Amino acid sequence: MKLSQIGEFEFIQRISKKFPLPKKGKKSPTQLVGIGDDCAVIPQSKSLSLLVTTDMLVENTHFIVQQITPKDLGYKSLAVNLSDIAAMGGIPRYAFLSLGLPPNLDIKWLDLFFAGFKQLSQKHDVLLIGGDTTRSASSIIINVTLFGSADPQKIKWRSTAQPGDLICVTRCLGDSGGGFKALNNSTRNINNIKATNSPTTSHSTDSSRLLQRNIEYLLRHHFRPQPQIPQGQWLAKQTAVHAMMDVSDGINSDLRRIMEQSQCGAKIHIEKLPLSRPLKNVCKHFNWDPWELAALSGEDYCLLVTVDPKKFETLSQNFYTRFRQSLFPIGEITNTTGKLSYFLHSEPFSFKSKGFEHFPG
Amino acid sequence: MKLSQIGEFEFIQRISKKFPLPKKGKKSPTQLVGIGDDCAVIPQSKSLSLLVTTDMLVENTHFIVQQITPKDLGYKSLAVNLSDIAAMGGIPRYAFLSLGLPPNLDIKWLDLFFAGFKQLSQKHDVLLIGGDTTRSASSIIINVTLFGSADPQKIKWRSTAQPGDLICVTRCLGDSGGGFKALNNSTRNINNIKATNSPTTSHSTDSSRLLQRNIEYLLRHHFRPQPQIPQGQWLAKQTAVHAMMDVSDGINSDLRRIMEQSQCGAKIHIEKLPLSRPLKNVCKHFNWDPWELAALSGEDYCLLVTVDPKKFETLSQNFYTRFRQSLFPIGEITNTTGKLSYFLHSEPFSFKSKGFEHFPG
Repeated sequence: MKLSQIGEFEFIQRISKKFPLPKKGKKSPTQLVGIGDDCAVIPQSKSLSLLVTTDMLVENTHFIVQQITPKDLGYKSLAVNLSDIAAMGGIPRYAFLSLGLPPNLDIKWLDLFFAGFKQLSQKHDVLLIGGDTTRSASSIIINVTLFGSADPQKIKWRSTAQPGDLICVTRCLGDSGGGFKALNNSTRNINNIKATNSPTTSHSTDSSRLLQRNIEYLLRHHFRPQPQIPQGQWLAKQTAVHAMMDVSDGINSDLRRIMEQSQCGAKIHIEKLPLSRPLKNVCKHFNWDPWELAALSGEDYCLLVTVDPKKFETLSQNFYTRFRQSLFPIGEITNTTGKLSYFLHSEPFSFKSKGFEHFPG
Repeated sequence: MKLSQIGEFEFIQRISKKFPLPKKGKKSPTQLVGIGDDCAVIPQSKSLSLLVTTDMLVENTHFIVQQITPKDLGYKSLAVNLSDIAAMGGIPRYAFLSLGLPPNLDIKWLDLFFAGFKQLSQKHDVLLIGGDTTRSASSIIINVTLFGSADPQKIKWRSTAQPGDLICVTRCLGDSGGGFKALNNSTRNINNIKATNSPTTSHSTDSSRLLQRNIEYLLRHHFRPQPQIPQGQWLAKQTAVHAMMDVSDGINSDLRRIMEQSQCGAKIHIEKLPLSRPLKNVCKHFNWDPWELAALSGEDYCLLVTVDPKKFETLSQNFYTRFRQSLFPIGEITNTTGKLSYFLHSEPFSFKSKGFEHFPG
């Protein structure tokens, strides 16, 4: 049987079963948390736990060198890991970077990669303190392991959603996916997108300039995701918030992780998915379905939380006061374990496509 | 300029310069140690530090799928990281495993890979508590991040060698390199080596059976290196030991790391390099230079220590009493910074080949 026949999630479940944690109080210290959430949690003291997350980016799977600048790639390699620390309410601390590199790679490319990585690491006071560099025959491979710290009493989990909870996201969905689609809709080269839609060409009109600006907005979200570190820390402290994770594979995939871990189901109201104006404009121009991008495309790197419905109003107001940012309710947690259903204006709805799959058949 | 033109070590120095640690007492807690040793060291308390090491293995750079069984590969992926923890005198604790995998990979292969990984992790009480799995177009990529713990007062460094120190290794050198050479000398397929030299063929003689057994001995060292965890912990406690690291790229490369970090030079006496009988026999049969394999080939995963010469005899006796294993003196640390010289029976000596280079030009 091939890996593609079982898919990523069944594969991870197989690994979890092979490597169970010892029973609490025996070899495993209390509160040690392994595979199954955004980060592993290693307890240090009553008030301090270590969070650890790791992400591997592989050329031509996660990025195409002709499409992303080395500086953006360095930035994004750290950003995707920061987002996992945000999802547990942690403070990011230390990074380890392993690189598999073709020997003919230009040093200038690498210097720019490190400049992007450094820019974001400095913003979040993250220290790069180790890694590995090795030869790779042709493709560039990046593996970041990121450490954070958190108060174990304040960590939010995927496993603590409750039926009746409101499902909320902290930002518009689909911008990154829209940027990715725009990129691949062009001649697969970022310079071409810019040139084709350049406002300085003689054919440019107001609407083409607007389209260009909107595409650039989406590309910025795709190449430079903003991990929500302070938002995650703030949400982790709120008793109104029951479960939390980050949106990396798209809410359609990510919600299923919460459903699995919390043994529940979920309903999503399509018309409530928050869409940015640029995404709406670009989708209209190219005749794309913005809801499909919002639900299935992933790489939003905002936070997905489930909230006690009685406390939602206050939480939402306080969140807005603190961050000038809305908490968007998009659905509810249900008690029909394993069932994720979509509704459009209360009518059952289904997408044509499936969500992102790491090992497509 | 290409990566291959500057090589791995200059590249790592470039990264270190780009990411300096903040001055002690400011953001960086005292005793935080970043790039430059076998592990990074994150202080937890006066008596406890966290050790972290990470290693990336890339198909066709570090292994060829037709040459290594999945079980041995799983074992070795963890072993190379355990050896880094051994080199600092640590106790291994938690592992994170990132895998880049082709979608058409057979699940059975993966199950065997995990069986090998688990075998060694159980032996050393290491818990696998996280990781990442992702698609890779064709090659298998393995990144392990391993955590250990150590008493910060007892950690041995690369930077603490002193002129006059005896340079010692804890095991025979070159067995893994000999196994690798035997493998590539055959028809690049482990099954062929076994079949060609099978003691059951009608042409087999005593000497071909011996050669076969010797090759198998070398292959075992290549595929199943034994990280020296208890030896590392014991050596770390001895005041006679000044510097310690593990031998991964070969003593010719690894000693240079100690020389750089300790600002010193080194002399190696070729005739003192410890060689196993199987390596000598196989080298004799194929007309290979065993000293070259011992000094340059790497992947020995034993320990390289520098020892106060006045305390060597006692240390060596105690080491033997404890482990029934010799501590082999192979040379001395000198004060001629940056100069590594080889001698054969007191005459200057040089190798034809260079050591292992991650980014060959």
